[in-house]
Amino acid sequence: MSASALAPALLDALKALLGARVSTSESDRAQHGRDESSHPPRLPDAVCRPESTEEVAGIVKLCAAHRTPVVAYGAGSSLEGALIPLQGGVSIDLTGMNQILAVRPEDLDATVQAGVTRKQLNAHLRDTGLFFPIDPGADATIGGMAATRASGTNAVRYGTMRENVVSLTVVLADGRVIRTRSRAKKSSAGYDLTGLFVGSEGTLGIITEVTVRLYGIPEVMAAAICAFPTVEAAVDTVITTIQMGLPVSRMELLDDRAIEAVNGYSKLDLPVTPTLFLEFAGSAASVEEQAVLVEEIARGEGATGWRRSTDPDERARLWQARHDFHWALRALRPGARGWGTDVCVPISALAEVIRETRKHCAQAPFFTAMVGHVGDGNFHLAMQIDRDNPDELALASAINDRMVNLALKLGGTCTGEHGVGIGKMKFMRTEHGEAVDVMHLIKDALDPNGLFNPGKVLPPRTS
Amino acid sequence: MSASALAPALLDALKALLGARVSTSESDRAQHGRDESSHPPRLPDAVCRPESTEEVAGIVKLCAAHRTPVVAYGAGSSLEGALIPLQGGVSIDLTGMNQILAVRPEDLDATVQAGVTRKQLNAHLRDTGLFFPIDPGADATIGGMAATRASGTNAVRYGTMRENVVSLTVVLADGRVIRTRSRAKKSSAGYDLTGLFVGSEGTLGIITEVTVRLYGIPEVMAAAICAFPTVEAAVDTVITTIQMGLPVSRMELLDDRAIEAVNGYSKLDLPVTPTLFLEFAGSAASVEEQAVLVEEIARGEGATGWRRSTDPDERARLWQARHDFHWALRALRPGARGWGTDVCVPISALAEVIRETRKHCAQAPFFTAMVGHVGDGNFHLAMQIDRDNPDELALASAINDRMVNLALKLGGTCTGEHGVGIGKMKFMRTEHGEAVDVMHLIKDALDPNGLFNPGKVLPPRTS
Repeated sequence: MSASALAPALLDALKALLGARVSTSESDRAQHGRDESSHPPRLPDAVCRPESTEEVAGIVKLCAAHRTPVVAYGAGSSLEGALIPLQGGVSIDLTGMNQILAVRPEDLDATVQAGVTRKQLNAHLRDTGLFFPIDPGADATIGGMAATRASGTNAVRYGTMRENVVSLTVVLADGRVIRTRSRAKKSSAGYDLTGLFVGSEGTLGIITEVTVRLYGIPEVMAAAICAFPTVEAAVDTVITTIQMGLPVSRMELLDDRAIEAVNGYSKLDLPVTPTLFLEFAGSAASVEEQAVLVEEIARGEGATGWRRSTDPDERARLWQARHDFHWALRALRPGARGWGTDVCVPISALAEVIRETRKHCAQAPFFTAMVGHVGDGNFHLAMQIDRDNPDELALASAINDRMVNLALKLGGTCTGEHGVGIGKMKFMRTEHGEAVDVMHLIKDALDPNGLFNPGKVLPPRTS
Repeated sequence: MSASALAPALLDALKALLGARVSTSESDRAQHGRDESSHPPRLPDAVCRPESTEEVAGIVKLCAAHRTPVVAYGAGSSLEGALIPLQGGVSIDLTGMNQILAVRPEDLDATVQAGVTRKQLNAHLRDTGLFFPIDPGADATIGGMAATRASGTNAVRYGTMRENVVSLTVVLADGRVIRTRSRAKKSSAGYDLTGLFVGSEGTLGIITEVTVRLYGIPEVMAAAICAFPTVEAAVDTVITTIQMGLPVSRMELLDDRAIEAVNGYSKLDLPVTPTLFLEFAGSAASVEEQAVLVEEIARGEGATGWRRSTDPDERARLWQARHDFHWALRALRPGARGWGTDVCVPISALAEVIRETRKHCAQAPFFTAMVGHVGDGNFHLAMQIDRDNPDELALASAINDRMVNLALKLGGTCTGEHGVGIGKMKFMRTEHGEAVDVMHLIKDALDPNGLFNPGKVLPPRTS
């Protein structure tokens, strides 16, 4: 813990702008100095709680005048340290910007302030027959999800935030406000600024409003589960399903260790073997057709124990192991918050990366398990380490390094959905080569003083 | 016609690099100085025909050293002057880079050199059961389609080049070569450079290789056609269809004038009224279900004359009017090449823009008709003007201005798929406001000497 180092003149100016919505209390600063990752916390010097784009612009202008860093803060659910204010400065907490500004059923889009969470939006949409599908697990803010290019279990059908953000309102480094794009469904009118800010993790601008795509809630949903003799068999099932163009909603893989953990936690008796959790959605006929075809493919790959249901309670039971995985992990080692890392590879390389990573994990003294958004080639490795134990941290780091480097070697990326933050910066040069220099050129052009979330995303220049 | 103004030292150096694949002949230069638009031609000083990324990098380096502009050239099918070398310099003709480098059925992607055309790729894929869906009409090169963020009739189901380019190889202004992204299906690893170069129309870099997404060829296809009393009724049919999440492959609207033209040209007797052309694809059950539901929706909106078929010959007959539209236009006024312009609006605004534009067109002494990729809110206005008649050109320009400005007022974009080129630059400030300045910052950072396709996309700075 440290005293706030904010310049008194800046603090006064922020107070003049926001009144009591500026805080330098230690508890506020502590809350805004950590996330869900294993990266060490670092306190901001102040926390600001704006309620409008104009107030965000005001904060940015004042901080720019005082050469003070700013970091955007949403739900605090980052897994790679994206929101930790490495150089102090001001944490802009956007959760007070939680207004749903417009829902347009005819155009299948909605505009929200950045602090609206995905659950809040879906609750608001309940009576429209529409929904916003992106589900990263945590009830993240939509601004934070845009900033991290988040996705999750639904991405195999609906895409990621890249495909589902229509337009953004962004505060630039000089306090100017832009809208990145019109609401037209497609456009060839100039550079894709929306795409540029999506996934930029607050390093190029502060996202204050987001227009997202909405979808009709499917008429019928079905859940299914089945067990495979090997990870390869499960992955091949998924590859064939996707090649056939079947619009399966979710395809999640839990490895044997994950099943073991959930069996213990949830008193289940699933076979301890790689298991697919599937969800089908659409018309009754389409759901039936998808499910029958996928079952046939799975059985051809040696799957057993196929169970399926459209009944809501039974669906929940079938997916219970998937939903309980997070809690099962925590229960395995109370107090340990663990380390969750993700990579994404071309699906042809998925089985190999999982198999090799399992080998590396076999000797670890802590529990490890893998859960994959397998239709996208994306999976998470969870390691239940004691973060205060340097040996465990070092071993976990070595396992992570080997997994990421193998993923990169096989044509993949160092993070499919968690973002770069602090944790994945060291892989950026290997993944992108000289393209990192292009990212630096863009960063320097848009944030010449380097005040937006400094120390994140881009590794230091080589020259 | 003008003599080449290329610096002799540069010409010598290019010849040393490319041998006979450099040309300063007037016929070559003339061919590379015009496109399908009504913008006046301007000849490049030389045409280069590289066969590898390294040769493109060599050309760019030499031109940079001589402060000479470079413009990429593909199939020459631009509709907004994107490839016209406004300041002379070197036209880089990429059609010699026509190798298909890899097809990966398991990963549903392919990597091609930029000069491969979409028909060439699909012919190559014929035996794999896969296809590349983006179809802008012309047999454009995939590099050109990426540079323009092209789309076309299939976009309502498969998205545009924005969604279907996985990764690019790009030559930068200093001749360095980058790959924009891995082949992973999703990634949160840094700025979306792929998205930045897609749609940049050769102003930020030269695209030399493209990795695109592929899809399984649907099992069954069906075509359908029906006539509506009004444009509104047709648009409402489309809105309901999309809200229901029906994965219709194509939904094309021809207005009454377009039907009239095609009736004359193709000896058809379609009712002269707004007409929807639909295509359904998927499993037999899914196609049947989609078609029955859409017919029901259409009839509820007053549609008549519903006809549908899965038979290939009959499908071709049903869609004949849509396919013949381009030729029918040309036949209406032999010698006139016409003016084709496009806008895209939120679908709730589509009927209004079409209705108002029809009113503006009613008094024109030349033929006008509208064809829409209506599921995306995107439509084309075709005006069969004599481009050498200044009065007709001025009136067509006024109609275009009114249509674009109305589209922008209603939340749309000045171009849905043709690109900005020269023709739409004047609308960029109205559409994007200060976001144009951000585009300038990026342009200046990536192309500090302004040698990549100068005079395109971005309007002059305000300050």
